[in-house]
Amino acid sequence: MLMFDIFDKCIEENKKTVTRTQEELEARLGELQREMKAAGIPTVIVFEGWSASGKGTMMGRLIRSLDPRGFKVYSMTKPTDEEKRYPRMRRYWLNLPSNGNISVFDRSWYRCIDFKDGKKLKEEDEEKIYSLIDFESQLAAEGYLIIKFFLHISSDEQKKRFNKLKSVKSTAWRVKKSDVKQNENYVKVYRMLCELFDRTDLPGAPWHALDTSDRDNAAAHMYSIVIEAMERALEQKSRGLAVNPKLPEITSPTKPQVSVSLADVDLSLKVEDNTYKKRLKNLQERLFVLQNELYRRRIPLIIAYEGWDAAGKGGNIRRIAQALDPRGYEVLPIGSPTPDEKQRHFLWRFWTRLPKDGHTAIFDRTWYGRVLVERIEGFCTENEWKQAYDEINRFEYSLTSAGAIVVKFWLQIDSDEQLVRFTARQNTPSRQWKITDEDWRNRAKWGDYEVAVNEMLEKTNTPEAPWVIVESNDKKYARLRTLEEVIALIERRLAQKDD
Amino acid sequence: MLMFDIFDKCIEENKKTVTRTQEELEARLGELQREMKAAGIPTVIVFEGWSASGKGTMMGRLIRSLDPRGFKVYSMTKPTDEEKRYPRMRRYWLNLPSNGNISVFDRSWYRCIDFKDGKKLKEEDEEKIYSLIDFESQLAAEGYLIIKFFLHISSDEQKKRFNKLKSVKSTAWRVKKSDVKQNENYVKVYRMLCELFDRTDLPGAPWHALDTSDRDNAAAHMYSIVIEAMERALEQKSRGLAVNPKLPEITSPTKPQVSVSLADVDLSLKVEDNTYKKRLKNLQERLFVLQNELYRRRIPLIIAYEGWDAAGKGGNIRRIAQALDPRGYEVLPIGSPTPDEKQRHFLWRFWTRLPKDGHTAIFDRTWYGRVLVERIEGFCTENEWKQAYDEINRFEYSLTSAGAIVVKFWLQIDSDEQLVRFTARQNTPSRQWKITDEDWRNRAKWGDYEVAVNEMLEKTNTPEAPWVIVESNDKKYARLRTLEEVIALIERRLAQKDD
Repeated sequence: MLMFDIFDKCIEENKKTVTRTQEELEARLGELQREMKAAGIPTVIVFEGWSASGKGTMMGRLIRSLDPRGFKVYSMTKPTDEEKRYPRMRRYWLNLPSNGNISVFDRSWYRCIDFKDGKKLKEEDEEKIYSLIDFESQLAAEGYLIIKFFLHISSDEQKKRFNKLKSVKSTAWRVKKSDVKQNENYVKVYRMLCELFDRTDLPGAPWHALDTSDRDNAAAHMYSIVIEAMERALEQKSRGLAVNPKLPEITSPTKPQVSVSLADVDLSLKVEDNTYKKRLKNLQERLFVLQNELYRRRIPLIIAYEGWDAAGKGGNIRRIAQALDPRGYEVLPIGSPTPDEKQRHFLWRFWTRLPKDGHTAIFDRTWYGRVLVERIEGFCTENEWKQAYDEINRFEYSLTSAGAIVVKFWLQIDSDEQLVRFTARQNTPSRQWKITDEDWRNRAKWGDYEVAVNEMLEKTNTPEAPWVIVESNDKKYARLRTLEEVIALIERRLAQKDD
Repeated sequence: MLMFDIFDKCIEENKKTVTRTQEELEARLGELQREMKAAGIPTVIVFEGWSASGKGTMMGRLIRSLDPRGFKVYSMTKPTDEEKRYPRMRRYWLNLPSNGNISVFDRSWYRCIDFKDGKKLKEEDEEKIYSLIDFESQLAAEGYLIIKFFLHISSDEQKKRFNKLKSVKSTAWRVKKSDVKQNENYVKVYRMLCELFDRTDLPGAPWHALDTSDRDNAAAHMYSIVIEAMERALEQKSRGLAVNPKLPEITSPTKPQVSVSLADVDLSLKVEDNTYKKRLKNLQERLFVLQNELYRRRIPLIIAYEGWDAAGKGGNIRRIAQALDPRGYEVLPIGSPTPDEKQRHFLWRFWTRLPKDGHTAIFDRTWYGRVLVERIEGFCTENEWKQAYDEINRFEYSLTSAGAIVVKFWLQIDSDEQLVRFTARQNTPSRQWKITDEDWRNRAKWGDYEVAVNEMLEKTNTPEAPWVIVESNDKKYARLRTLEEVIALIERRLAQKDD
């Protein structure tokens, strides 16, 4: 027996009485939008439903009471060819509202499951369902208010509406062949949807079914649901509590493996000048050839750089970049988030910077800022950086499960070597711009960073997205080492499967 | 006789001696990048060239001396299906650098002309050439440094390179059938390109031809050209002069028509309550049907709202929006530009917000802010707002020539009516948020605004994107009037051509 039955849920909802008039509901929602804005709570509203169930009408009813400066409607039709070149959930991440704003989704991430073919959920849908739950639970944990509507009509009502649309020239095109087929398979699709909604009816992201055969009635209930949810969220926030109820623990499909630690690193490793030049040339040539292969086989490559100040990230990245065709890679320097970025989930600004398939992204500092500088400088709460390890593992898992190669370098030097390099920069006029007071302030916190780095290495060294600690007291050794690692990873992948 | 001959230009360039070593050139460019950043001058560098002329290599050479935090490479392959749903130049506008940064374009807007088919420039290319010149002259006028490279190899050299690429499995896919065909048509393509470059070799956006059969030599010249251009730009800026030489006057393909003026408006126009309700319902139903037609025929609709504070823009927009399917329109409230937007051409933030074909965008305030609030508050220079009229006409022309319907409403009330409405807002607690000190300050400048509005109406009332002054002392009358105008414009278009 399914817990979630769409029809039952409609009846249940209809039993509730809405005492306010439509005008009162609209006025109240307008007020609440302003309060949510002031409280900085972002809202995500999903409209799913049968074809011809009136999503357009219902959304229209909802937004007419809203100030257009605070919401946006996103119509999520089939992904474009361009969108297909990125991980599945990227286009939803990109359209997340900033704090205090509302994103209304006309159809949603649930459409990665085919709503029309009438087949049961299959083995290969499991990964998709995981990614849906992962997405929503990430949002819920960061305090996004999530409201999901399914607009319901019966099979007969749907057929009637299709016929009506078909009878008028200007609307006939709206009824697709797949719609007619779905109507024929109505019962099977119904069962599949009930199962899907049952599994995704989460405390922080509940489903609401609305019977839209009576639109006025459905609209009244829709308003009540949104109003109630916003009132609860505001109440929670005003009391300093989490906006959403605690979510069921999501079983992360990936776990950190054997831990690596800064203590294990042999910083005396070196390379001779002659060897270096020859080896560098060979490795760069090899990487260039491999980049072509990655492009041809549409595999994205993500290289993440972290490390101590003056550990040599810039020079190291340049040696990788020199080897690559500039049309196929991008170096992404990550500084502090912009005001716009601060208004969203901390991973948002990385979702917006992902490489297309076949392309390479080199991140000069990364999403690990959350558990390094943000942790140490107190730019986020303890709770936030503590939950970030798991969020990051899941983020990287969504990259690798979409086919990306992900490698993360920690450039390790010792404190003495850093002092030597800082002093050299200070004393060379043409390089003074490379050293700032902030570098010295960070240096004073070496011990704190060491603790944070070790914890990061321990908690995020997953098999899919491994950490490589690069011995960097000798810059040349370090450059060869990263090139070798990147090459080895690509070769392993290319050997694995011929996509 | 053509003025611009690619081969001659290469010889001319090669006659110049580059005295600095490659290392010195790289160091100098690194310095200049920092100086350009400090001076806030944005740079656009275009790489065009024959297939296999080494665009990737040359770009790679150029960027290896640059700080990755200040540049971005954009590979402009064929427009995607999604991109085709917008005006042609949009994807270039979107990738413009912000002040102090560099955008490197691997292939460019010039590819709207087919580089491979060997045909002469045709009648229908004229409109494309206009849009190229229009784009570059808009950038040059706003102080973007533009450097355009054409990488040149001979027909034989090209054939040799194709053969080499084809001989290796990992690069064979790079040689397309169209490339081979282009090589066969080399001479014809050459002639076409010379003509194209001759016409687009503008003072503020010159072409440079580089002979890349010798890559080291070409790289040295490329560096020299960029260095010299940046040095000149910095010099100009430091002396308070325009970065670019004065461009030849571009003949705008559109001119303002019979002038409209605020003085002509009859503000006593009114509508009775009963008539209003019935008429509103009819008009909205009609608009809904027309929206479907626009969608089906892929015509974008842009409705621009300007008007006095409290003239009723919000309520007016809502009456239009209520009629529309929310999946097909967006209301875009335009406030002051964000820090990010301030760092770019003032039209950039509108290019990023254009509707797809078949969709509707309703702008609540618009690009006319430049010649209204920015003019009056001194947020831009006199020169900037004065040149904005023409820039705006050309902007709107690029929308309409891409197929959009553009209509602009000025909501007109008199000063007495504004006072009544301000006072009413002040005295109604639930509406107090709608009135701020700024509104009162603006009101004090009524006279200044009146002058600015009349000048705007006079200079930007083009046949393609007409102004409609809406008599708005009676809100209901105004709502019907805008609905009628929108409907009339759509009907006229639909009658015109069946795309």
